Amino acid sequence: MEKNDKKDFVVEIISIGEELLIGKIVNTNATWLASRVTKLGGKVRRITVVGDDVYEIISAINEAIKRKPNLIITTGGLGPTFDDKTMEALAKLINKPLKINHEIANIIRERCLRKNLPVNEKRLKMAYVPEGSKVILNRIGLAPGVIITKNNVKIVALPGVPDEMKDLFNRGIAPLICGEKFFEEELIVEDIYEADIASIIDEVMNKIPEVYIKSHPKIEDDKVVLKLHIYSRRSHEVVKNAVKMIIEKICLTKGKIRHCLAG
Amino acid sequence: MEKNDKKDFVVEIISIGEELLIGKIVNTNATWLASRVTKLGGKVRRITVVGDDVYEIISAINEAIKRKPNLIITTGGLGPTFDDKTMEALAKLINKPLKINHEIANIIRERCLRKNLPVNEKRLKMAYVPEGSKVILNRIGLAPGVIITKNNVKIVALPGVPDEMKDLFNRGIAPLICGEKFFEEELIVEDIYEADIASIIDEVMNKIPEVYIKSHPKIEDDKVVLKLHIYSRRSHEVVKNAVKMIIEKICLTKGKIRHCLAG
Repeated sequence: MEKNDKKDFVVEIISIGEELLIGKIVNTNATWLASRVTKLGGKVRRITVVGDDVYEIISAINEAIKRKPNLIITTGGLGPTFDDKTMEALAKLINKPLKINHEIANIIRERCLRKNLPVNEKRLKMAYVPEGSKVILNRIGLAPGVIITKNNVKIVALPGVPDEMKDLFNRGIAPLICGEKFFEEELIVEDIYEADIASIIDEVMNKIPEVYIKSHPKIEDDKVVLKLHIYSRRSHEVVKNAVKMIIEKICLTKGKIRHCLAG
Repeated sequence: MEKNDKKDFVVEIISIGEELLIGKIVNTNATWLASRVTKLGGKVRRITVVGDDVYEIISAINEAIKRKPNLIITTGGLGPTFDDKTMEALAKLINKPLKINHEIANIIRERCLRKNLPVNEKRLKMAYVPEGSKVILNRIGLAPGVIITKNNVKIVALPGVPDEMKDLFNRGIAPLICGEKFFEEELIVEDIYEADIASIIDEVMNKIPEVYIKSHPKIEDDKVVLKLHIYSRRSHEVVKNAVKMIIEKICLTKGKIRHCLAG
């Protein structure tokens, strides 16, 4: 783990959905968010996955609040079906009622009129948000995102449909995240085991403590292949220096550099 | 969320690795484990992702223990590099020292001899496990899994390399998981919105409360496509009855059944 400075913009992600807990859906939303937050300068400290259960959602958010992040992002549970319970959980969390937001209700009515769809109770459910919350309009689907605050921690709820989640994040959340840039390089190495590169990683990280080097081993056609991810929030220069140093040290072993990718 | 009976075998998954928090790697390990646990009859209640940090690992495990699951499965952090810290965290968690396991040390020496690799300190690091822990040997890589117990909760640590994790789970953990079977079907529906199928789902779930129906909407070439996942732990019969009832009700709307998959 990189050192956490006081100035870090710390983010926690909470993914909501039974489908994640039964292993039906891979949590690519959390990966996308984590990558975007990291590149914007934020630091994701924890990702939590809970089911479609009001008590579980509230518990997970309250536990995250106690760790005092700068921002909590939830995804999922904002749609029209019985198991979309995030708004109910958020309202209970801040002890406010769910109230109809007329701007959203009007948008729902207008879009339904245009598409010749019924304005039923299930669609209008998506216009109910916790009283006092700030709304982020959804341009793709109907369910809006909301921003609420508890104990000085900002909590943003985004829909679980990936395209909607991404659009709402980019428009409403990305501008809130600040921090240092993220610089990275990737190195793919053959014929050297993780246990043999471990001391090279130690050496390089001792000489250049601003970089973090992570190794990911796998076997390809009976051959050991190591993917090294070298990154830093200091400068691209330190990352490139670390890459150079690793390459030099690997050349002194029987390992081979297969590929070097600019990040 | 399905109703949690007292007899449920509840599992929590804790994924360890900075690469997950920066969005470099999609957490397919958690999805695979969640799916396997579900099919074996267990219920995954929560998935938590933390970085390579002893304090964070201990916190996440202690928080999970407080929720009294039957089993906690961790993945990652067992390898030879500086940031593989799970064994250290587990030892601190149960207040025991890390001790060399001579069986593992001998296996490491023997495999190195066979492959003409040095038996260095980094490789031998993988033979150190918390005193008193039960070891699950790794047949693919070197890092073993371990089983420890705290406050009557079993904690299993598995490696993060997917093939190793899967093999260790199947041999050492799967036999520990018991519970009711999982029955499922999938239905793909066109030209009906989630907000319009929501009341059909309500109706069917009211008539057959043992099934859970989850809808996953997406847009394909400007067309609405809904994937419905229908599942139960009761019997395949109730799932098939629910599917039949949904199909009948959809036929009364302008929606079309595109595909029906047996689970």
